[in-house]
Amino acid sequence: MGKQFLEITEKKEVDAIIACVAAEVAKARAAKTDASVEKVKVAEALGRSVSADVFSALNVPPFDRAIMDGYAVVASDTFYADENNPASLIINGSISAGESPLQRIDKGYCMGISTGAPLPGGANATVKVENTSEYADNVEGKKTKKVKVYKPVAPGENIMLAGSDIKRGERIVRRGTTLTPRETGVLAACGLNEVAVHKKPIVAIISSGNELIAPGEDLEPAKIYDVNSQALSDSVRECGCSPYFLGIARDNIEDISGRLNESLEKGVDVIIISGGTSAGVGDPLPKVIEELGEILVHGVDIKPGKPFIFGTLQGKPFFGLPGNPTSALVTFNLFVAPLLRTISGIPVQNHEKGGGRKEKRIKAKAAQRIFSERGRNEYVLVNLVSAKKPEEASVIAYPILTGSGAITTLAKADGYIFMEKGKEIIEEGEEVYVELLTNLFASKKLYQKIP
Amino acid sequence: MGKQFLEITEKKEVDAIIACVAAEVAKARAAKTDASVEKVKVAEALGRSVSADVFSALNVPPFDRAIMDGYAVVASDTFYADENNPASLIINGSISAGESPLQRIDKGYCMGISTGAPLPGGANATVKVENTSEYADNVEGKKTKKVKVYKPVAPGENIMLAGSDIKRGERIVRRGTTLTPRETGVLAACGLNEVAVHKKPIVAIISSGNELIAPGEDLEPAKIYDVNSQALSDSVRECGCSPYFLGIARDNIEDISGRLNESLEKGVDVIIISGGTSAGVGDPLPKVIEELGEILVHGVDIKPGKPFIFGTLQGKPFFGLPGNPTSALVTFNLFVAPLLRTISGIPVQNHEKGGGRKEKRIKAKAAQRIFSERGRNEYVLVNLVSAKKPEEASVIAYPILTGSGAITTLAKADGYIFMEKGKEIIEEGEEVYVELLTNLFASKKLYQKIP
Repeated sequence: MGKQFLEITEKKEVDAIIACVAAEVAKARAAKTDASVEKVKVAEALGRSVSADVFSALNVPPFDRAIMDGYAVVASDTFYADENNPASLIINGSISAGESPLQRIDKGYCMGISTGAPLPGGANATVKVENTSEYADNVEGKKTKKVKVYKPVAPGENIMLAGSDIKRGERIVRRGTTLTPRETGVLAACGLNEVAVHKKPIVAIISSGNELIAPGEDLEPAKIYDVNSQALSDSVRECGCSPYFLGIARDNIEDISGRLNESLEKGVDVIIISGGTSAGVGDPLPKVIEELGEILVHGVDIKPGKPFIFGTLQGKPFFGLPGNPTSALVTFNLFVAPLLRTISGIPVQNHEKGGGRKEKRIKAKAAQRIFSERGRNEYVLVNLVSAKKPEEASVIAYPILTGSGAITTLAKADGYIFMEKGKEIIEEGEEVYVELLTNLFASKKLYQKIP
Repeated sequence: MGKQFLEITEKKEVDAIIACVAAEVAKARAAKTDASVEKVKVAEALGRSVSADVFSALNVPPFDRAIMDGYAVVASDTFYADENNPASLIINGSISAGESPLQRIDKGYCMGISTGAPLPGGANATVKVENTSEYADNVEGKKTKKVKVYKPVAPGENIMLAGSDIKRGERIVRRGTTLTPRETGVLAACGLNEVAVHKKPIVAIISSGNELIAPGEDLEPAKIYDVNSQALSDSVRECGCSPYFLGIARDNIEDISGRLNESLEKGVDVIIISGGTSAGVGDPLPKVIEELGEILVHGVDIKPGKPFIFGTLQGKPFFGLPGNPTSALVTFNLFVAPLLRTISGIPVQNHEKGGGRKEKRIKAKAAQRIFSERGRNEYVLVNLVSAKKPEEASVIAYPILTGSGAITTLAKADGYIFMEKGKEIIEEGEEVYVELLTNLFASKKLYQKIP
């Protein structure tokens, strides 16, 4: 059974409902890997999320290698050597990085060796070149190259044993890791040029409204340009998913249900519609969802975003976001992003997860008194300006008063402050947490100096 | 004149030399826009850096629009109206979002109007539907739809005037802005579907070493897999540039100069070689640079990264990084990234820039005593673990002792602590700043819970 229209649900409950659906969907995806996993070239894997633990098929290094330029020796030949009584060894050729030693060495012999070269059989240490001096000597009437060793080495000294860095079978990248240049480097070190990653979920995006036209088209009278399809597509990309734009729907049952069915036929994983979510007469969307699927949430006790809709269509999560661009982005961040990150395999960036650096949350000081509507969970949109202090970084948050309908609000709103029911005033200078609306905030905002 | 080999330069001086070259190159690029600027679809512009201020060609909203459902009225008709003496107006049709009003209204008349619809001529305010009631009346023996208005409205009330959000000619996106979903949304709002962005500089990447083979190939005896070409390519991508991999060079003058000339012919903007930077006999690289261009730096007073090389080849910045993967990444972050960000138009992420959130720098507590080599500027590689405290986020930094040659160091090293010459001990629990090796740290490290 679906909920009554605008039967307001508490935010916490909405989070729980969405988390539950997200977990189901993620589980279902994980079950049929063909739908959720793909192999990609490591060269194209930066930023992708690894779908299974990766293990090394080989030892790193694959052989005992010298880590100093010098001479590969039998350590015991050098014991007790010092400046006055150096050990003297016959040089049996030399070996440099990339070459494989042709012969082994026995006691009394050594081999010139360069950093990274494999240790010849018989040798178990490397003497640094600094602690030696070469000389020519006569051995059985034959001129012979020898080296004096002025310092003893212990077995294993100045060499790196095969597998001492990474053992064959050792786990090198953990499932769920978002690949950075470090992990792609580690994969390369183990000789891998392919890796299994989570497929990007496909998210259908529909804008609804009779007044909307697409950017690039000529502006007709009474029309305005569609903002949300662009802003939401890019927000979807930031969550590691692929947007699939289904165009602008007119505010009538046929057009909307047509596009919803189209996206279901295309096999998308999630559906987002913005606009037409209020329960007014002119808003067919809720009716359509009731027909095609199930409405689990219609109305949340937050501002902006009250008329938010969440439900399922044939098991696919469905989001109905407000038409106001800023409200749409706020509700996207609150409700859609966590679900997308869960099913895309990218860890949820959410301060409730606790720990360390918050990718999308920063501390700031309120620039002025901020008021919230009584008895409302309010998300106050703020513009952030960095107070240029040399050391201790500090950011000032200015509330934006133009309202969630204005595009300038979208342009200015770097993030929002949550004022929970009961919290009605934030004092000037009070420290607040600001949730950023987008990932790419910092680079844009706080470093404006461009060549 | 080029510097002597391994005439150690102070880090500060190296920074200055590189910054100076970076500024020159950026200036030169800016001069010939065909080389530095391209138009891209807004739909593909997320994360790109805008090359020139963008101005709106139209008013937003383009017309006076209602921001409430109700009735478009002549405000003066409603003055003095209240519950007992409502104003009474003849309803002259209605208009909804996306429609253009066909006729204007005069005093004594009104028009039903829905949120987002254009205000009809003559009207200068909207009365909320809540403050009205419709009824039928007889006007000159003719049944007529009328509405009672119980509350007065001032001129301009409940409407948004054309251009009150964004004025024609107003700047909507500033030059150098990295586009987020907000900016792409604002561009869409102004009807734009194309935007001019900085072209991605092309960075040639060469790995040098006789022992190296490419991942995916069979491992031959005495060989190891090339790590740096992968790790550096992805680091280059993180700086908003396009890597151009020129393969693995053998340690001889012909092969190296051949690949350098090839990259110059390809017209790359920057060249990075890793490996073969020390001044040893087996290292032809410095000689090659001396021949083809100019060495400005060879040797820095830091560890790791001492044998770092910086110079120019036919005016193109050239970097010679150590072969050790971790040393290569550290020197990349210290010296290459700032230059790449400068010329790619992406603001430099560098704490010296001051202000606000540091994309790549976080505070942490030392897990144990950390020692630095006397009289050395040392970058101590650390592994970060988040101490799971509910509120105040805190991160513990563990020094990594496996050395910059080990791949496990690369795998573990989330970042590094700078211990300046003179600072030889960091106490356990001491607060330190950690520079992250890669951008994507947070999502990987601090949120390991995956479905």
